[in-house]
Amino acid sequence: MIQYYKEPIGWILENDTFNSQTLPKFETIFAQSNGYMGVRAALEERYVNETRNAFVTGTFNCADYTEVTELPNLPDVTQMELFIDNERFSLDYGSVNNYSHRLNLKNAEVTREVEWTSSNGKTLKICFGRIVSLADEHLVASYMEVTPINDDIAININSGINGRVSNTGSQHLTEGERRLLNGKILRLVTETTQSKVQIAVHCVHKVMGANLDFLPIMSRRTFTASYKGEICKGNTLRIEKISCYHTSRDIESDNSVNDVCKRGEECIDKAFEEGYEKIASLSANAWDKYWQIHDMQIDSIDSYDQLAMRYALYQLNGMVKRNDNRVGIGAKALTGEGYKGHSFWDTEMFILPHYQYTDPDTARTLLEYRWKSLSGARKKAESNNFKGAMYPWESAWLDDGEVTPLWGAADINTGKSTPILTGMIEHHITADVAWSVWQYYKSTGDDDFMARCGCEILLDTARYWISRANYNEKLDRYEILDVIGPDEYKEHVNNNAYTNYIAYENLNFARQVLDIMPKKWKETLEHLIKELDINDLAEHIDDVMAKWYLPKPNSDDILPQNDEYLNLKEIDLSKYKYESGVSSIFNDFGPEEINNIMVSKQADTVMLMCIMSDKFSEEVCGKNFNFYEAHTLHDSSLSYGTHGLLASRLGRTELAYTMFCHARDIDIGQNMKSSDEGIHSASMGGLWQCATFGFAGLYQVEDKLYISPKLPKEWCRLAFRFVWQGCPVFFETTHNYTELQNIGDKTVELYFEGKVTKLAPNEKIRYTSERTNYEI
Amino acid sequence: MIQYYKEPIGWILENDTFNSQTLPKFETIFAQSNGYMGVRAALEERYVNETRNAFVTGTFNCADYTEVTELPNLPDVTQMELFIDNERFSLDYGSVNNYSHRLNLKNAEVTREVEWTSSNGKTLKICFGRIVSLADEHLVASYMEVTPINDDIAININSGINGRVSNTGSQHLTEGERRLLNGKILRLVTETTQSKVQIAVHCVHKVMGANLDFLPIMSRRTFTASYKGEICKGNTLRIEKISCYHTSRDIESDNSVNDVCKRGEECIDKAFEEGYEKIASLSANAWDKYWQIHDMQIDSIDSYDQLAMRYALYQLNGMVKRNDNRVGIGAKALTGEGYKGHSFWDTEMFILPHYQYTDPDTARTLLEYRWKSLSGARKKAESNNFKGAMYPWESAWLDDGEVTPLWGAADINTGKSTPILTGMIEHHITADVAWSVWQYYKSTGDDDFMARCGCEILLDTARYWISRANYNEKLDRYEILDVIGPDEYKEHVNNNAYTNYIAYENLNFARQVLDIMPKKWKETLEHLIKELDINDLAEHIDDVMAKWYLPKPNSDDILPQNDEYLNLKEIDLSKYKYESGVSSIFNDFGPEEINNIMVSKQADTVMLMCIMSDKFSEEVCGKNFNFYEAHTLHDSSLSYGTHGLLASRLGRTELAYTMFCHARDIDIGQNMKSSDEGIHSASMGGLWQCATFGFAGLYQVEDKLYISPKLPKEWCRLAFRFVWQGCPVFFETTHNYTELQNIGDKTVELYFEGKVTKLAPNEKIRYTSERTNYEI
Repeated sequence: MIQYYKEPIGWILENDTFNSQTLPKFETIFAQSNGYMGVRAALEERYVNETRNAFVTGTFNCADYTEVTELPNLPDVTQMELFIDNERFSLDYGSVNNYSHRLNLKNAEVTREVEWTSSNGKTLKICFGRIVSLADEHLVASYMEVTPINDDIAININSGINGRVSNTGSQHLTEGERRLLNGKILRLVTETTQSKVQIAVHCVHKVMGANLDFLPIMSRRTFTASYKGEICKGNTLRIEKISCYHTSRDIESDNSVNDVCKRGEECIDKAFEEGYEKIASLSANAWDKYWQIHDMQIDSIDSYDQLAMRYALYQLNGMVKRNDNRVGIGAKALTGEGYKGHSFWDTEMFILPHYQYTDPDTARTLLEYRWKSLSGARKKAESNNFKGAMYPWESAWLDDGEVTPLWGAADINTGKSTPILTGMIEHHITADVAWSVWQYYKSTGDDDFMARCGCEILLDTARYWISRANYNEKLDRYEILDVIGPDEYKEHVNNNAYTNYIAYENLNFARQVLDIMPKKWKETLEHLIKELDINDLAEHIDDVMAKWYLPKPNSDDILPQNDEYLNLKEIDLSKYKYESGVSSIFNDFGPEEINNIMVSKQADTVMLMCIMSDKFSEEVCGKNFNFYEAHTLHDSSLSYGTHGLLASRLGRTELAYTMFCHARDIDIGQNMKSSDEGIHSASMGGLWQCATFGFAGLYQVEDKLYISPKLPKEWCRLAFRFVWQGCPVFFETTHNYTELQNIGDKTVELYFEGKVTKLAPNEKIRYTSERTNYEI
Repeated sequence: MIQYYKEPIGWILENDTFNSQTLPKFETIFAQSNGYMGVRAALEERYVNETRNAFVTGTFNCADYTEVTELPNLPDVTQMELFIDNERFSLDYGSVNNYSHRLNLKNAEVTREVEWTSSNGKTLKICFGRIVSLADEHLVASYMEVTPINDDIAININSGINGRVSNTGSQHLTEGERRLLNGKILRLVTETTQSKVQIAVHCVHKVMGANLDFLPIMSRRTFTASYKGEICKGNTLRIEKISCYHTSRDIESDNSVNDVCKRGEECIDKAFEEGYEKIASLSANAWDKYWQIHDMQIDSIDSYDQLAMRYALYQLNGMVKRNDNRVGIGAKALTGEGYKGHSFWDTEMFILPHYQYTDPDTARTLLEYRWKSLSGARKKAESNNFKGAMYPWESAWLDDGEVTPLWGAADINTGKSTPILTGMIEHHITADVAWSVWQYYKSTGDDDFMARCGCEILLDTARYWISRANYNEKLDRYEILDVIGPDEYKEHVNNNAYTNYIAYENLNFARQVLDIMPKKWKETLEHLIKELDINDLAEHIDDVMAKWYLPKPNSDDILPQNDEYLNLKEIDLSKYKYESGVSSIFNDFGPEEINNIMVSKQADTVMLMCIMSDKFSEEVCGKNFNFYEAHTLHDSSLSYGTHGLLASRLGRTELAYTMFCHARDIDIGQNMKSSDEGIHSASMGGLWQCATFGFAGLYQVEDKLYISPKLPKEWCRLAFRFVWQGCPVFFETTHNYTELQNIGDKTVELYFEGKVTKLAPNEKIRYTSERTNYEI
C-alpha cells in the first residue's frame, strides 16, 4: 500500500508493506534523478524480479543492427549484498517487521527501515538511505546501517560496481577495465559498443562502527569490495557507499577516456572526504532552492493532491538537463528502460509548457535540442521523399534521425510481430515542435533564439508540410492523408483534425516569420536563403494555406477526428473504460478490428481544443468534449490531464477535478502494475497543465496571457510562480480572491478574466469576487 | 547434502535439502548434455543466484573486440514461472517439505519433488522432470505436475523462450524474431552477433488434467505462453514443455536461416505428438545402449565409488559430439560458462584416452578437430615468429587460433589486472596433441587417419619445436626456455621437464613418420612436400634431437621440474594442502611470491612419469612421487587422478585409493562451491584414467598394451570393456583373478603382467593368483 499522508504532509510517499512482486512499481516511482542521471530505486539486496537501472542522459547506443538506439543501462552501484551468519539477507524469507520505504520529495532522499529476523533467529534493525545528488550531478551516495538486536552476528557485505547489466537483455557496454585506486576506490571504465561513449564509474566505501576486513574482488564485468567481520549485539555498523558516473558525453568532457577517469577520480576523492551526510545536505540545499521557486501550493481537502503535484514537480526537475541542448526528455524520463530513453511529442506538448512558464531558459534549451536535431529531421524527410525537416516520431541523439522501432508485439491471430507505424505515419510531431517554438517566442519575445534557431525550424518544417500535403483535385484543396493522429488506436486515417489544424498553424507561423525576418532577423534570412530553398516559400505557403483543408464541426457540432471516425462501428465501451489497467480492449479485439471501432485511446480532438480553444466556440468545445470523452478509453497517460484541462476551461470544474484525480494516479496510484518500465513523464507535465491551464486558467493566445481561474470545490487555495515575457509573477487563487504579484523587475501585462492589467515591479493586485465557478 | 546411496544404488545422486545459496552446485552437477547441447539444471522457478545456461557445441561468438570468443548462452527454455493464487512459487518462502532433487544416471533424467505451502496456507505437491534427449540431440523436454492438497487454487504458469540471457553480462545474440506457429508453437530465431550463427528455438506446451486459458506474450527477447485457470483440491495439473534448438553450425545444416526454422518446426511437430513420456523413453533407450557398452563396474565397500565412476562416464558421454570433427571439448564441458567453452590440453591428456580405449572413432574425431584447427595453430606460430603449427593454449572454432583471454583478476597490491600468460608461454599443448596422435595411431593402426591428418600434425608440430628450441651455445644443447609447464604456479621457467620430454617425443614421432611415409603414405608425403617446408626436416630433427636437453634425475633421484624449482624457497604448506577449497595460498601470497616458493599447483613431473613410466625406473618414479606430492597443493582438478594413477602403478594402492577418493569429490563431493561455473571435464577423464591405467593397470608403450591390475582393498571387483587394435575386450579383475575376454571378431595381443597373450575371438582367459598387491 502506498501511503500519501505521512508527516510532513504533502512531501512523503511511503510503501509500508514489503512485497517482492510489487518491486518494479517502487523502483520506478521512488527513482531519483537530477537531469544528468537517473537511478532506479532497486533495493540494496537482490530480488528475482528487480530491475536495476542507472542512466546518464545522452549516452545513446545501438546494441545491434537489428535494434534501434537506446539509453544504455550503466553499471549498477545500488546493489549491496548483505550476509548475516552466512545467510543472504532478503525480505523474501525470515521475519519482516516495521517495514518502511520512503521517498521524501523535499530533499529527494529515499530511506528504508526494517526489522528482520533471520532463519536462525537473529533479529536486526537495518536502515538504508540513498540520494542522487542535485548539487553534484555525477554523485550517487547511499548508506546501510545494521544493528543486531538480540545477538552478535558475523557479517559479510559485498558491494561495488556491477557491469552485468543490460537493457532487458541487450548489452550496450564493453567488458571494461577495472582497477583499484589508492587501495580503496573501485574503478570500472567501459565504453558503449557502437557510439563509443567512454564511461567511468568510481565507487568507494566508508565503514563506521565496526572493524571489517576488506577484500577487493574482480570478476567478469564486476568489481566488488567484500567486507567481513563481526558486530556485537546493540552496536551499529554503518557503511556508506559513494559512487560517481562520468562519461564522454558530459558537456564538460574533452571526449577522452583519460578525462572521464580524471574527473571521476577527483569527484570520488572529494566525495569520500565529504561522506554521505555532507553530500546529502548539499543536495538537500539544492532541492530547497528548487522548491522555493517551483513549488505549487495546493490546499485541498485531500492532501494527496498537493503530494501528487509535488511529485510531478519532483520528476519535472529530475528529468531535464537544464544546461544541455544536445539532449531531450525521455518518455519515461530517467526512471526505466521503457521507450528506450527516446523523446516524443510528449516533450513539446506536455512537458515543455511547464518550463516555458517556470524556467524559460530550460524551454529554450529543449527547443535548441530540436534545432540541433534538424539534420536528423532532414534525413527523415529525404528518406520519405519529402522536403524540409520532418521530425522523427522518436528522437535520441542529435543526428540519429528516426529511431522508432519497426516491430512491436505479436498479433495473436497471425502469430507475427506487428509493425510499429508511428515512426512512419504519425506526422503531427513536426507541427508540435513548430507550435512550441512559436508559443515560446510569443511568451518570451526571445528574438535571439528566433534568429539562431526558431526561424530555421519554422521555415524548414513549413517546407516539409508543403511537400507533405496531398492535393485533392476534385475538391481543389490540400489534405493530409494516411496518418496517425494523437489517438493511436486509429491508423492510416485521412485528415486527422488535430494534424490538419496544427500543420496549418505551422505554415502560419512560418509565413509570419517570413514577414518579420527582413526587418528583425536579416542576417538569419540571408543565411537561410543560402542554406534552404526558401526564395518562393512565402508564395508557396500562401497558396497552400488558401486551399488547406481544416475540418469543420458537422451539423451536431462534432468536429470529426478524421474523415472516417464518425462512420465507424459503435460498441459498448463500458467494459474497457472502467478497467484499472489500460489496453484491456486488446483482450477482445485485434489492432485491425479496433481501427474500425469508434473508440479512441486518448485525447485527440479534445487535445486540439485545449491548445486552440479560441478557434472554437465554448458550445462546440463542450459538445466535442462530451462526444469524444464517451469514446475515449484513456489508455494513454496523456489523456486524463488533457481532458481535465478542457473540462476546467469549460467551467465543468467537478468533472475536471475527477480527471485530475485520475491523472494524479497514473504513476503513484495504487495500481501496482502501472509503472514497471518507468514513470510517464508527459503525465507529470499533464498534471501541471491541468492545474495551471485548467484550474488556474492560464491561456496563451499569441503574445497575450489570459487568466481565468476555476478552483475545484475540494481546493481552497492554489498558488505558484510563473514567468511571462521574462517577468516572474506570483499567482494565488482561492474561492474569494485571486492575487497576482509582479515579483520581477519590469512591468508585465496580463489579461485577467478578459481585462488587460499592467503590473509594475512588486505590484500586487487582488481581485475579489464571490465566484462559484464550480458545479455543486 | 548430497546423497549417494539412494536406490538404485550406484545410479542416483540426490539433493534432499533445498538451499538457494547452493543452487549453482546442483545446476552444474545435475546438468544434462548429449554432446550436441548442454542444459544446466536451473530450477523451473527463478532465484536470485541462478545461472540458466543452454549451450550448443561449436556456436562460438566473440561478443566484442575487447573479449575473446566463447560458447554463447542460448535462450533459456528451463524457466517455468508458477503463480498460486497470484503468489509466485519459490522455495525461498512458504513452507518446504519432502524436498528431493535427483539425477538418475541410468536414464539421465532429472526429477524434483516438493511439498510446498504458500503464505496463504495452500499446500501443494509439485513434481518436475526434465531430459535432454540422447535419442534426438535437439530436444529438451520437461514436465511440471501440480496437485493442490488442501484447497482449490488459481494457477498461472508463464513458460516459454527467454532470450534475456547472457554470458555473465556479455550478450552474444541479436534480439531475434518471434512468431507463433499453428496457434501453439513458440519460435524465436536469432543469430550470434559476430559469427552470424543462425539459431532457432522452438517450444510447445501440452496441458493435461485442467482447462487453462492460453495467451502468448511477446516481450523484448522473450516469447512466453501464459496459462491461467483453476485446479480443484486433489486434482493434478500436468504441463509438459517440449523445446528444441537448431543452429546453422549443426553438421546437417545448409547454413540458411530457413533451414534452422524448417528443421526446428519438423522436430517440434514430431516431439509434440510424442509427448514427454515417449521422448524420455527413447532417450532412456539410448542411454541403456550406452551403459551396456560403457559401464565400468566397481564393486566397492563404498558404493559412492561406483556412483562417482558412473557420474564420470555420464559426463564423458555428454561432453563429446561423437560425429563432428569441427568441435572440441570444453574445460567445463557443456555445463557452465567457465573457461568459455574452450578446449585445453585437458582433452588430449585426460579425456581423449578414455575414448581411445572405449570408442576409438570418437578419439579420431577429436584428433581430426586438431587437424582441422591447423590453420589457427599456424597463425599462432607465425604471430609468435615460429614455424609450423603451434597449438593454441585455448581453442574454440577451427580457425580462431589462440583464444586465451589476455587479462585475469586484479593484483591486490597494484590494483591492476594481471596478464594471463598461458596463451603466450604454456607451450606443451602442441606436443600433447602430437602425443595423442601417436598413442591413437599405435593403439589402432589407423593408417587412413595418419595419411589424412596424423602425419601433417606430427610434421608441422615438429617444425614448430625446431624453431622454438633455444640453442645453448655454452652447453651445445637445445633447451626450452621461458615456459609454463603443467604446474601453472610457475611462470617463465626454463627447461620444464614435462615440456622438454614430450616435445622430444613430438620430434621422435615426426622422425618416425618421415621414415614410414615413403612406404605407406606416399601421396601424403608428396602433398606435404608441396604444402610444408619439409625437404630437410628429417636431418633437422636428427640434429636437434641429438642435442636436445632432457633433464635427468639429480643425485637424490629427483628429476627437477625445471631449472629453478629445486632452489626455490621452502615453506610449510600444510595450511594450504588440507583446505577444502582451492587456491587458498593466494590469500597469503601474490602470484610473484608463489612463483618463488617450492610449491606446485598440480601434477607436473608426476604427470610426466605417468605417461612415460617406462622411461624412468620404479625407484625414481617413487622418489619423485613422494617429493612432488609433498610440494603439490592439488589446486587443479587434474592433479588427484594423476597422482592416484602413478601411486597405483607404483603399487601404492592404498594411497592411490585415497587419491581416487579425492578425485571422486571434485565435482560431486560435499563442497558446495566446487563447481559453480561448470564441472571439471578433465577430472572425469582423470578419474577414469586412475581406475583404468591405475587400478586396472593398462599401460600403452607404442603399439603394445601392458596390463597389470592392482585392485584397492576396498574394491572386490572392477570390470569394463576396452578396445585395443580395433578389438573389444572385456576386462574383469578381483582379488582372486583377472579375466580377459575377446568380445570382438579378430585376434588381439595383450601383455598381461609382462607376458604376451593372444586372444582369439570369443576367447576368455582367466589369470588366477592370490595377489596382495595392496598395502594392508
